[in-house]
Formats: sequence, structure tokens, C-alpha cells
Amino acid sequence: MALWSGRFEEGQDARTQRFGASLPVDKALFAQDIRGSRAHAAMLAAHGIISEADAAAIDAGLAAIGEDIEAGRFAFDAADEDIHMAVEGELIRRIGDAGARLHTGRSRNDQVATDTRLWAKERAADLMRANLALREALVEAAQAHADVILPGCTHLQHAQPVLLSHHLLAYAWMLSRDFKRLAQARDAADASPLGAAALAGTTYPLDRHMTAGALGFARVIPNSLDAVSDRDFLLDLIYACSVSSMHLSRLAEEIIIWSSAEFGFITLSDAFSTGSSIMPQKKNPDFAELIRGKSGRVVGDLVGLLVTMKSLPLAYNKDLQEDKEGAMDAAGTLEECCWCAAGMVSTMTVNADAMLAQAQKGYLAATDVADYLAKKGLPFRRAHEVVGHLVHLCEQRGCDLADLPLDDLKAECELFEADVAGMLDLPAIVAARTTYGGTGDEAVAVQMGEARADMEADSTLL
Amino acid sequence: MALWSGRFEEGQDARTQRFGASLPVDKALFAQDIRGSRAHAAMLAAHGIISEADAAAIDAGLAAIGEDIEAGRFAFDAADEDIHMAVEGELIRRIGDAGARLHTGRSRNDQVATDTRLWAKERAADLMRANLALREALVEAAQAHADVILPGCTHLQHAQPVLLSHHLLAYAWMLSRDFKRLAQARDAADASPLGAAALAGTTYPLDRHMTAGALGFARVIPNSLDAVSDRDFLLDLIYACSVSSMHLSRLAEEIIIWSSAEFGFITLSDAFSTGSSIMPQKKNPDFAELIRGKSGRVVGDLVGLLVTMKSLPLAYNKDLQEDKEGAMDAAGTLEECCWCAAGMVSTMTVNADAMLAQAQKGYLAATDVADYLAKKGLPFRRAHEVVGHLVHLCEQRGCDLADLPLDDLKAECELFEADVAGMLDLPAIVAARTTYGGTGDEAVAVQMGEARADMEADSTLL
Amino acid sequence: MALWSGRFEEGQDARTQRFGASLPVDKALFAQDIRGSRAHAAMLAAHGIISEADAAAIDAGLAAIGEDIEAGRFAFDAADEDIHMAVEGELIRRIGDAGARLHTGRSRNDQVATDTRLWAKERAADLMRANLALREALVEAAQAHADVILPGCTHLQHAQPVLLSHHLLAYAWMLSRDFKRLAQARDAADASPLGAAALAGTTYPLDRHMTAGALGFARVIPNSLDAVSDRDFLLDLIYACSVSSMHLSRLAEEIIIWSSAEFGFITLSDAFSTGSSIMPQKKNPDFAELIRGKSGRVVGDLVGLLVTMKSLPLAYNKDLQEDKEGAMDAAGTLEECCWCAAGMVSTMTVNADAMLAQAQKGYLAATDVADYLAKKGLPFRRAHEVVGHLVHLCEQRGCDLADLPLDDLKAECELFEADVAGMLDLPAIVAARTTYGGTGDEAVAVQMGEARADMEADSTLL
Amino acid sequence: MALWSGRFEEGQDARTQRFGASLPVDKALFAQDIRGSRAHAAMLAAHGIISEADAAAIDAGLAAIGEDIEAGRFAFDAADEDIHMAVEGELIRRIGDAGARLHTGRSRNDQVATDTRLWAKERAADLMRANLALREALVEAAQAHADVILPGCTHLQHAQPVLLSHHLLAYAWMLSRDFKRLAQARDAADASPLGAAALAGTTYPLDRHMTAGALGFARVIPNSLDAVSDRDFLLDLIYACSVSSMHLSRLAEEIIIWSSAEFGFITLSDAFSTGSSIMPQKKNPDFAELIRGKSGRVVGDLVGLLVTMKSLPLAYNKDLQEDKEGAMDAAGTLEECCWCAAGMVSTMTVNADAMLAQAQKGYLAATDVADYLAKKGLPFRRAHEVVGHLVHLCEQRGCDLADLPLDDLKAECELFEADVAGMLDLPAIVAARTTYGGTGDEAVAVQMGEARADMEADSTLL
Repeated sequence: MALWSGRFEEGQDARTQRFGASLPVDKALFAQDIRGSRAHAAMLAAHGIISEADAAAIDAGLAAIGEDIEAGRFAFDAADEDIHMAVEGELIRRIGDAGARLHTGRSRNDQVATDTRLWAKERAADLMRANLALREALVEAAQAHADVILPGCTHLQHAQPVLLSHHLLAYAWMLSRDFKRLAQARDAADASPLGAAALAGTTYPLDRHMTAGALGFARVIPNSLDAVSDRDFLLDLIYACSVSSMHLSRLAEEIIIWSSAEFGFITLSDAFSTGSSIMPQKKNPDFAELIRGKSGRVVGDLVGLLVTMKSLPLAYNKDLQEDKEGAMDAAGTLEECCWCAAGMVSTMTVNADAMLAQAQKGYLAATDVADYLAKKGLPFRRAHEVVGHLVHLCEQRGCDLADLPLDDLKAECELFEADVAGMLDLPAIVAARTTYGGTGDEAVAVQMGEARADMEADSTLL
Repeated sequence: MALWSGRFEEGQDARTQRFGASLPVDKALFAQDIRGSRAHAAMLAAHGIISEADAAAIDAGLAAIGEDIEAGRFAFDAADEDIHMAVEGELIRRIGDAGARLHTGRSRNDQVATDTRLWAKERAADLMRANLALREALVEAAQAHADVILPGCTHLQHAQPVLLSHHLLAYAWMLSRDFKRLAQARDAADASPLGAAALAGTTYPLDRHMTAGALGFARVIPNSLDAVSDRDFLLDLIYACSVSSMHLSRLAEEIIIWSSAEFGFITLSDAFSTGSSIMPQKKNPDFAELIRGKSGRVVGDLVGLLVTMKSLPLAYNKDLQEDKEGAMDAAGTLEECCWCAAGMVSTMTVNADAMLAQAQKGYLAATDVADYLAKKGLPFRRAHEVVGHLVHLCEQRGCDLADLPLDDLKAECELFEADVAGMLDLPAIVAARTTYGGTGDEAVAVQMGEARADMEADSTLL
Repeated sequence: MALWSGRFEEGQDARTQRFGASLPVDKALFAQDIRGSRAHAAMLAAHGIISEADAAAIDAGLAAIGEDIEAGRFAFDAADEDIHMAVEGELIRRIGDAGARLHTGRSRNDQVATDTRLWAKERAADLMRANLALREALVEAAQAHADVILPGCTHLQHAQPVLLSHHLLAYAWMLSRDFKRLAQARDAADASPLGAAALAGTTYPLDRHMTAGALGFARVIPNSLDAVSDRDFLLDLIYACSVSSMHLSRLAEEIIIWSSAEFGFITLSDAFSTGSSIMPQKKNPDFAELIRGKSGRVVGDLVGLLVTMKSLPLAYNKDLQEDKEGAMDAAGTLEECCWCAAGMVSTMTVNADAMLAQAQKGYLAATDVADYLAKKGLPFRRAHEVVGHLVHLCEQRGCDLADLPLDDLKAECELFEADVAGMLDLPAIVAARTTYGGTGDEAVAVQMGEARADMEADSTLL
Repeated sequence: MALWSGRFEEGQDARTQRFGASLPVDKALFAQDIRGSRAHAAMLAAHGIISEADAAAIDAGLAAIGEDIEAGRFAFDAADEDIHMAVEGELIRRIGDAGARLHTGRSRNDQVATDTRLWAKERAADLMRANLALREALVEAAQAHADVILPGCTHLQHAQPVLLSHHLLAYAWMLSRDFKRLAQARDAADASPLGAAALAGTTYPLDRHMTAGALGFARVIPNSLDAVSDRDFLLDLIYACSVSSMHLSRLAEEIIIWSSAEFGFITLSDAFSTGSSIMPQKKNPDFAELIRGKSGRVVGDLVGLLVTMKSLPLAYNKDLQEDKEGAMDAAGTLEECCWCAAGMVSTMTVNADAMLAQAQKGYLAATDVADYLAKKGLPFRRAHEVVGHLVHLCEQRGCDLADLPLDDLKAECELFEADVAGMLDLPAIVAARTTYGGTGDEAVAVQMGEARADMEADSTLL
């Protein structure tokens, strides 16, 4: 019978019990549960609510149970509803009445909220570490390929030449924002609900600040109803995972496109590729595809919890039992995606020649030629129109802008002079973008310094 | 080394392998995989593509492997990417070259699509069964409480009296639509991709109609690219689960509200209630809350797959490996929710007195009084206004419409006569709603017959 | 004052009124509202509930109001909550008491459900038409480019050569399934709630089958509570739109990738391209990108309504007012996307040479070479391994399979003979895939006939 | 013809143009667009890129256009793609060549990002204001009803008595977290993309820090590719709206339940209620239902943008045009919901007697009786069991715990004495919960001070 069954006549059948059980999911929280219970017992004793002897027995008993679970020696009983009941029930079996005093002034409602917050803080930190690892891989790759030029695209159409390092750093900055969101999620979790009891607080002189301190929480939640029914910190965590997964889906998409025969911009290492069961020649970017595809499940996890939370009256409702599985899935998924992406980026081969060859196509100098005219006084909108006509002419002739004789240029606009040739060299075009944040070599060097400093600063938060 | 590793130099490390593996999820498809492979081998032999002897060895080998997995005797290897490789690898280990001929004219791309469709058809049928069980429970409860009146609500405000049976049948009709959607999802899955090979068909003279027939598929997919990249049938299944879960969340919400002390309309059986770890008096409708809360994860599963599918180019992409887990979760969740809801509805106690007492409150006769005036010739809009004033008068006096003297009624409208009293009796008000689909006793009896006929017809689809 | 304000003392301020008003959205339903009211009035008169004279006045009045709205002559009043009140209020202003009798035996709850179902049926049909237009464009393009070969991809890696027509037909089949879903959504809407009144039916001898018939509904909803609170038909419609939008996002993704300089497979017409405000050379596939991007809003619309419906108790709740905007958005979005995609596909230029040139790369013959060995008796798994090694050899030498001397082939496997050359010709490889649904020319011709027949059959549903 | 049409031969038809146009949505950004352009022009002149005279003409021209739009005097042309082209085109028409120089060193890609960020910052601030207004209303209501006791619920079952003020403050704390998320979203938007140009920076010596400063941005985005393709700030804003909408759905749910006849805990003011078109007695909490239902659209908006962003390669893609409508909808929805909820809470009547009467039911003292035993030395788990039996006894007798004679208590446990009576008084039970965050009067007074201080601190961020 359950520990709460005093007023009940009938029990549940096995299927119903299984439907209601959260143990398969929340047993992952055993360490947090034991940590929280030990802090609670120590506080109870410190304030004379239970005896020191009972507290000592509880503490030793819980420590032993924790070791047993850790070592795989603990036989969970399918009849245990959840990890809290499993641990407490075992404690009572082992140490008797002292164990039955552990739950004094506490409810599973504040207990599960405490465990889940401890878990969320730890997992957020894990994700911050994985995030930094991927940024490190991106920045290193940017450094390693500092002078590689590829066609920068908008609309997947060649737009202007950019440095590969600039391109890779764009992802480092996305991930920098993700780190911030993860840190905010960690901070959101960093408040203690312990002592809120079922929903209203308790008549025992609990010292909530003492347990909060012992468990490393930065603050104490100021309203007991809110303490047991708030799951914002999990939403924040899953949301942070969702946006970061979306960013990784973008990186993965580019890796996949770049690995195509048509682009041929990169070659993934064998260690991050797979073959086909039927086509012997295939070398597939499976891992990039998985990273891209897994963004779906993370967004699904976010939606799942938002739907579950919708319309719930105060305070605790059993619906909240559904909170953990999605969060665990989102965190586990993002963590593995970050590590995998880092490995992929670190080991890929960059085909600089293929990138450069493509950058020669598509009239990437057109903007600079328009700017050339604008700098000579032609309003930019007119210059844009002139170059548009020249591109059209090139397309008809099947040639490049550099192939047009000066006379043809002059026929469109008198301002063209021989010095326009200087506008048509890719490295020069790149280098000329010297403003802050631009793709010019110097600007990118500055940016890389900032990206490293940013990572340095973030790593101090761990 | 993987079965496709001929052209590869490096292998993957354990973490990468684990990230890419689908085995933990797709081993649930072992029976479907073996069934599909046996049909494929039989067809290969029937058309002389492999020898009868090889086919016989394959068939026996696969049957034995299937029994071993079923019996828990099969040791899956973490290095196996997926269930297909695990089974085929083992087959080759057991029967040698014959096993290596199984994959002739086939790819994992059409293989996994086949397995998943077989699975989806079976699970849709399971869900149709669970759906019928819940409808049966609702219709039985409706029958058992045929004469119970409760306050029908709009906006959770008392509106008009209705029969509890009418109210319960409303859910039976929602579930009837869910059944139809599940049947449509089953039909969507009921087409064979086998023989599409990797993406383009094959040069072997495969007989796709033969394997389709052997596997019980209703039709053959007419385009090989579509065959390996279509996952609409899973979306259809998860969508059907989502809408049904939403319906169950509505039923669960009402069960929870009705179980509150304030409503007291029903008492759940102990077998579908739980207690509190701290509050000894609590009896909580946990299972209804879980049903309500689990609607979140099912909607999340739907979103997950839609996001994953977005923007995928043809044909197979590894992103599609993410298709199964959400579908399995959605199906498993809905199935258990249906069975649990059926148990809850079948065992709940209806407090008819409490329902009737509440139906006396809130001026539920107001519409009928307005209709009374309208039938005497007052335009309905004017009648509505007159009764609105009378209700306002009652509220000020703290009385009911039946308590107003005829003079007060006449003061508002001359058309009132003594016979208005007949408009104020709840059973009479209910019974007077005789039109098709209304809450009148006779209309509900007709409706119940239709609901049973509907279930009868649906059950023939299983 | 509102038409329901009899019992109220205070009115609402303008901001609150605006917040509660649905008129800006539901005035799009004016034609359906008027149609429904005319059918209701005719039925009331046919059954003697109102006089023929009143019915005639109502009918003429409503017709005139409808014409005025149609012509833009109708001044909506911000104080009108919704289209129903706006029309009914105006009717009363125009024809007096007769107008006030229109609402006899009806509630806005069944009225809005009726209007919305009429709307949904019409819009589903519009979408079915747009769907057929796009399929027509795809099939025509498939026909027009019947002999074009492109590299069929899995994982965006060259896999096997396929016909462009085969590739385009894959989308036609996706859309064929979408048509079915749209038809199912139309069928889901095709049931009349009229006569359910507020929630319980009514005491008037309404003839629900008569109004249903007059309005073209296929059936009458058998439960009044369900009639006013069911929005499944809108979910079905938005879901159908979501899946179809997802399919279009896949087509759009391919159009975008194919339009890149690296692929160069197609050139979009100027009419379906845009330029850049800064880069004069740009020609962007904006419309394909919009189609891809708009899949987001449609999925968002689906989630929105699922969230709104979650946990609603019976019967009507004001939350349901949120049902229409998302459905209108989803339908409008998909409709425009279909027409735009049809235009794009019809006018794009196919660069067959570029496709063929790419198909020469990537060892697309590898599967056929493996099959060649398998047909000579080598188990397929061994053949796969042999060809894997040959591909690896080619990569090291920078050559193609066709460039390997027979001796090198034989060094890997004795079974190679001179006739292997026949396996290395792209058109031959394609043509050899003769099985049903494969990419072989004959198989595709059969398929095209089936696709046309499928469209023919579908068009009879309109 | 569009301003970018130099290289194009064909134009678009009206339907295509309409499909591609963002003007109907982004004209809401006209003020931000003009502000951004004026800052850009001033910077161009300050750095000698255009003349002071041109800058002055541009500045005056833009100011005049802004005033015309503001005053509704500006005739937008359906052929204008977006607000940027509409304004720039008009500027050129008005001031000629000077106007054509405005776009120097700028692209619509950085321009739209700038406009949208300016908009997001302003709207976040609006939402922070609406958030504070609702918190103010909640805290005021908590203060006004400081001594009202209601049954605190878990699982919607009576659990322990709590103060209404404590209950209302729980929502104030939820909203406090929402404020923080809104502030974080505002901060995410607070970085200038201007000067990133199309994607790569520009060859003009732009001063990005100058324009950022002039526009009030806190920082400059360090990577031009990221600058034009990042929409995280909109996701952050919609996410903040989603969580806050979810919180409001919970408050709305309670308002609806509390307004039911069965609970009767509150009476909404007429100004926040509506009537029925058919049932004259109805007074519906429509606005609470709308607030609850509108949580769906906001979550839908979040999903929409996440789906749209998924898998987009760098840098700008037209898909991003879909970013604004959902964000505008989410912000507008939440803002109105906050104001409406504030009005509803401020004007509702609290029926303290009804709350207290319900709090007498359901054995709310049970926990305190168990604590009474536990404080006398009985292990809590045993005490829980004893009281469970007593509750069961009360249920069988149909009485309350206070009605049990001491002998019956002693029969269950010897530790009971006459002083147990002190555990059974609701105000005493409430008052005894003195720990931090509990529902005791003193603890709530402390909490209210903290809630006010929290609002004070937050208001300094505006």
C-alpha cells in the first residue's frame, strides 16, 4: 500500500498504477532527492524539530541508499509511485521510526520542485559546457581557415564574397546568445521551494534559508503556492534548448549543402559520415542530418510543456508530473548535438579551391562596382540600375563583369574609368570591408578577438 | 565495422555511434522487420532472384532470430546502428552467404518505411480498440444514469438543465470522430513502399504487388522517391492522437471540476484516486489530471515531426530517423489514457442529488420563460429583454423566478398568465426539448440508439 | 446596448469592447451568416413558428443587408460584438418586430457553428482547386521534361540517376494525399449544428433536417452539446493545410537549392524572382522562400487552436471565438502558396545539361555495378563491399568507375567481365529500373497515367 | 517597376506581387524606418559620404513623409513591396537625387533588422508597463482582501486554508518573472545591425557606433552575417509573451471556476461580463475565457517563428519576412490581456462568506492534526495514517473532524488530548503558518512588502 493510503479502501490495479507512476522518469533524480532530504533532515534537527539522533540515522540511511542506487544495487519496486516514495519507503524499512520523521514539515510538492530545480541547474551547466565546446570548435576552425574566401549568400544566391572565418564566427555569436539563455534558465531554477510544504507553508518552525543555503540555491521562493506550481524554470530551459537547436539546424543545413557534390565546399571526416546499405559509393552526412532533424523534438518538448501548463489552477496539479520527461529529452538532445557538431566542425576538410572557384561566379563584384560609381557622385539608386544593366549584358554574352571592355561600361555610364578593374578582385573586395563587423580581414581579426573574450567571460560562469 | 563500410577508412567513436544509433527506439519494430524480410525473401525466390534453398535458409533463420528476440534471448550489440542491421548482421553470422543475399534489390530506406507502416497499421488498430472501449464506458454510464439532470453550462455558467446521459454522449460523439481519424491514419499507412529500394526502384525484377499482398498492404506506392520519404501516415496517426487527447483533456477537466468539493457531482472510485504524502484527508483525481496533462506531450509529438519534416529535400534524409519515437509516444499515451478514462467513467459514483440541487440555481428556466412569451406573440428579442429584467429583480430579492408573484411578472409583461408555472419545472423543461439532438428524454433515447449503432459499425472495421 | 443586456447595469468601456469583439474577424462570414438565417427563418415559417409574412420580411431584409455588405455600403458599428449581432441588429432596425423574431429557437452558439462550417466547406473546396492546379503544373512539367536525367539524392548526396519527371511526380503524389485530407476536412465540416440552440436543443418544433438540407449539409449533428462545442472540423482543415504546407516547403527547398549557382539545375522566371536593393546582380527565389517560410505560420495556426481547445469543459466557451482567425490564415496561406508554386513550376527553365553533368559525378552507377556482381552470384553484401573498395580507389585516383581498367576491377573481384561497361551508362541505368514505381522511363509513363487518372478522379469531388 | 529591377525583363503579376508584399504588415514600422534612415543619413554626412546638403534634404523629406503617414495622408501603393521601398521611393519622388543617395552603404537586410529591433524594444517596454499594471491590480486586491480565507487546493481538492491575498500574490510573482523575461527580450533586441549592409559590411567608412548611439542601441552587433539573419530577439519576445499568456490562462481559469454557481467565490463586474443571445439570465465571464483562449494564438506564434527559422542557411533569406506578423500578434494579444485582466481583478466582488463556508468543508485541518501528533512524538508517517483513518470515519458518519468526540480520537491514538481543538480553527490554522513564504498573516504581510519592492525595482527599468 502507498504511504498515503490511510483513508483509502481499494487499491489500484497494475495497469492504473503503471499509468500513474513517474518512477521510470524521475528515478533519474535520485541523487537530487537524497541531497534535498539530507538538507531537510539536518535543518529539522538544527531547529529541534527532530532529534539529532534521528537526523544522524536519516543522514546515514539516505547516504547508503544513494550509494546503492548509484551502484545499481537498489531494486526499485514497480509499486513505488515515484522516486520520493521509493527512497522514503526504503529508508523507513531500513531505519524505522526515525525514517518516518523525515517527511515532517515537507510535502512531495515542495520536494519534487526542489529536486527538479537542482537537476535543472546542473543540466543547464552541462549545456553551457557543451555550448562552449562547440564555440571553441567554430572559433578554432575560423582561425585555421582565416584566408579562405567563399561566396557569401543571401537567398542561397551568391551575393558578395566573404571569409569563411567570418561565416563560422556568425555561428559562434548565435551560440553566445544561447549560452546567455542557458545561464538565464539556470538562474531561473536557482531558487528554493523547500519548506513550501504542500502549498501553504507549515506550522513547523522551518528554516527555509538554511536548506536553501545548504543546497546551493541563490534565493528562497517567496510564495508557497507559487513554489509548488511554478515550472517556468523548465520552460526557460527547454526554450533555451529550442533556440539553440534551431541554430544548430542552420549550421547542419549548411554542412549538408556544402557536402553536396554540387557545392563540394567541405568533406566530412569518415568518423562523422555513414554509408548506405545498398549504394556502395555513398558517404552521407548523417550526423548533420540528425542534428537538423532533432530540432523537431526539442521544439516539440517546448510545446508539450506549454500545453500541459495551460489553464492549470493553483496550486500543485498532477499534470505537473509531465514536466520532467520533455526537459530531460531537450537537454540530452541539445547536449549530444553540440558535442557532435563540435566534432564534425573540428574534423571537416575545407576545400578552399572549390569555394574560391564558386566565388568567381555570380557577379559578386557588382555591389562594389555600384559603390564605385556612387563614390564618383552617381546617386546609389542610379548606380544600382547601371550595374543591373551590365549584369544583364554579361548574362546575355555569357561573360563576367571583368570581361566587359571599358567601352561597354562607358556606354552605360560615363563615370567608368580604367580603375574600375580594382573593384573586380575578390580578395580586394573582401579586404575593403573594413567597418566594424564586416568581412574584411582586419575587421574579422578584431571580431575573433571579441569572440574569444566572450567565451572567456562566459567560461567564468561555470 | 558496419555492413556499409567498404569505402570508409575511419570508424566512429562510441559517443558518435550512440548519437547516430536508432536501435534503442526501432528495436520495437523487430517483428515487423522480420515479417517484411521474410516476405521479401519469398518474393526473391518466387521470381528466381535468389534460390529456393537460400530463401528457405533465410526464412528459417529470420524466424529463429524473431523467436530469440521475442524471448529476450537476443543480445543486441551497441555497435548495430538499427534493428535492420542487427537482424541482418545476425542472419549472416548464422547462415552465411544466403543471409548476405537477403538485401538484394532492397535498401534500408524502403525497409524502414515498410516496417514503420506495418507498425502504424497495428497501433492504429490498437487505438481504435481503446477508443471503442472508452465509448462503451461512456454509453453504459449514460444508460445507467438516464434520468439524472445536471445544470448544462456554457461559459461554466448554468445555462439550461440537461440530462447527464446527453452530456456523456457528447463525448462519445467526439470519440466517434476520433475513431474515424484513426481509421484514416491506418488507411494512410496501408500502402507498400517495399521495392522502392534506395530511392529509384531497382534493376531486379521485383514483384512489389506480391510482397504488398503478403504483408497485407491494400496498395502499392506508385513512386519510389515518395515511397522512401513520405511520413504523412505518421503525421496522420499523431494528429489523430492529438485531437483525441484534446477531447480527453476536456473530459478530464470536467471530471476534475465535478470532483471538487464545491461541485460534488461525482465521486471517483478509490482505484482511480490517490492520496497526499502530507495531507491525510486528500483524495485526488490524479488520473484525470494525468490524462489532461498528457495532452501536452501528444501535441508536442505532432509539432516535433512537422518541424523535422519541414524543408527536407527528396528523397530519404537521416532526419527521418526521428520519425518513430514521437509516434510511439503519442500512440502509447493515447492508448493508456483511453483505458484509464474508461475505467474512471465506469467506476465513478454519480451524485444525482447534488447535480439536481445545483440545477435549481441560476434561473435555468429563463430561456423557457422567454420562449413562453415568444410563443404568445412577443418577438423573441423583446421576450429576452423582459426575462432579463425579471432575473435582475430576482437577484436583487435573492429569490428564484418561481418565487415571483404573477403580478410582478405582469408588471413586466402583460402576456404572463398562471400557466407560466409549467415552464419552471426542471424535468418538464428537459423533456420539452424534443427536437433531434436535443436533451429531451426521448431525443436522448434516439441518440443513444444511434451512438450504439455507430459503435457497432465502427467495430466492424477491426 | 447589446441585444443581450436586459439584466446588466453597467456597459463595457471601448477598450474592453474592442478586446471582446470578434467582428473584425467574423465579418468575413457575413454571407454564410445571412444564408444560415434565411434558411432558419424559412423553416420557422414552414413549421408555423413564425408567420409567413414575418419570414418574407426577414428574407427580404437579410437579402438586402447581404447586398449592402457585399457592395461595401454597410457601416459596421464598433459596438457590434460580432457579425451575427451586426446583421440581426440591422435587421431589427430595418423591419422591426419581424426581425426580432428571427432568433426564435436559435442561439449564437449554433449560429456561429453553422456559419463557420459553411465557410470551412467552401474554403476546403477552394483549397482542393488550388491543390489540383499545382498538381496539374507538376504533371505538365514532368511531361515536358520527360527525358531529363538528374542525380537522385539521398542525404543530398548523389545516389542514383533519376528522371526529373519521376522527381516532380513525387510531389504530385504528396499533393494527392493532401487533397484527400482536404476532402476529409470538408466532410468533417459537412454536418449541421443548426437547431442545437444554446446547448440543449429547444422547445420549438424545429426541423433540423430541413435547415440542414437547405444549407447543403450532408447530415445533422446528433448531440446539441457537441454541436455547439465541436471545432474538430477546423482542426482537420488546419491540419490538412499544415501537412500540405510542409510538402510545399520541401518543394520550395529544392527549387531554392536547384536555383543556386552551384547546382544551376533550374532558372526561375523573372516573374517569380526579385532583386536586391543593394546588389545589382541578384536574382532571388523570393517566392520559393516565402512558400518555405510560410509553413511556419500554418503549423503555428494548428498549434494555436489545439492549445485553445485543451481542457475546455462543455459546452460553448468564449475561448472558441479564437477558432476562426487561425483557420482563415491557414487556408488563405496555403491557397496562395499553391497558386504561386504552380506559377513557379510552370514558368521555370530546366537546365537539362547541368543536371546531366552533375549526374555523371558521384559514382551513381555503383549500385548497378554491385547488382551486376550479385546477379553473377556474389551475395549482395559482398558485392556492396567490393564496389565500396572500387569507389575508394577512384577517389584516390580522382577518376570515375568507368575509368578503371578491367584488371583493377578483377583485382577486387574475379566476376567482373567486359560487359560491366553496360552498367555505367546513365540512360541505361535509369531505363533498367522497370519495376512498378521505379524511375525507368516505362515505369514513369505508367505512373504518369496513374497521376492523371488520380487528378481526374479527384476533380469529380468538386 | 521596383527599385531593384535593373537586370529584370519581366515584371510580376498582381497576385504574385501581393503574395510577396510585406507592406500590409510592415507599414506598422514606418516610424522606426524613418528614424533609422535619418540616423543613417546623418552619419553618412558626418563622415563625408554624402553632402550635408543632401543629408538635410533627406532629413526634411523623411520627416515630412513621416508626418504624412502619421496623419493618414500617405497613399501607399500596392506595388510597393515593403515599407522601406515605399518610403524611399516617395523620398526620391519628392527630393530627387539626394533621395537616391540615402541607400548608400545600406541594404534592406540591415534596414529591416534595425527597424524590427527598434520596434521590439518599444513593444517590450509597452508589455512591461502592462505587466506592472496587472501586478498592481493583483497586489491591490490582495491588500483589499487581506483577511479573506479560502480553501487552498491541490488537484482542485481542498487541501489547506489559505489567505486570498496569498493566492493573488502567487500570480504577482509569476508576472514578476514574466517582467524579467520581457526585459531580457528587450535587451536581446538592443543591438544595432545597421551598417551590416546586405551581409558582408560595406566599403564605405560607415560609423556603426554613431548610428547605434543615435538610435539608442546599447551595443553594435559584431558580425554582419549574424546581424542580418538573427531573429532571436523576436523569439525571445514571443516566448516571453507565451509564458505570460500561459500564466494568464491559469488566472483566467480560476476566475472562471470561481465565478461558477457552485463556487460562487467572486462576482465579476458587469463591465467585464457579457450576456447570452438566447438565455436572458446569463452573465458570462467572457473576458476571462478570451484571455484563457488567447494563450493558444501566442503559443502558435512562437511555434510559427521557430518553424520558419529552422534550417535556414546564412545569411538573409526571404523566409525571414514572416518574422513580424506573429511577433506583433503576440505582443498585441498579451498587452490587451494584461490590461483586461487588471480591470477584471480590480472590479470583481469577492464573496468572502462563500469562500469561508467552503473552507469549512473537506477536513482542511487534517494536516495540522497530523502535525499535532507528530509534535507529540509520533513519527509523521504514522500520524498521517492515524488522521487518514479519522477522516475515513468522518466520511462514514457524514461529520467533520471537529465533531468527533475525544474518545474516538483516542481510540485511534492515545496521544490526543483536549487541546487538539485548537488545531481545528481555520484562522488559527492559517495564522500558524509563519515560515517565510507561508500563508500566515504575518508571513503574507512580509511577502506583500517584497512584492511591492519588486514592482518598484522593476518600474525603474522603464
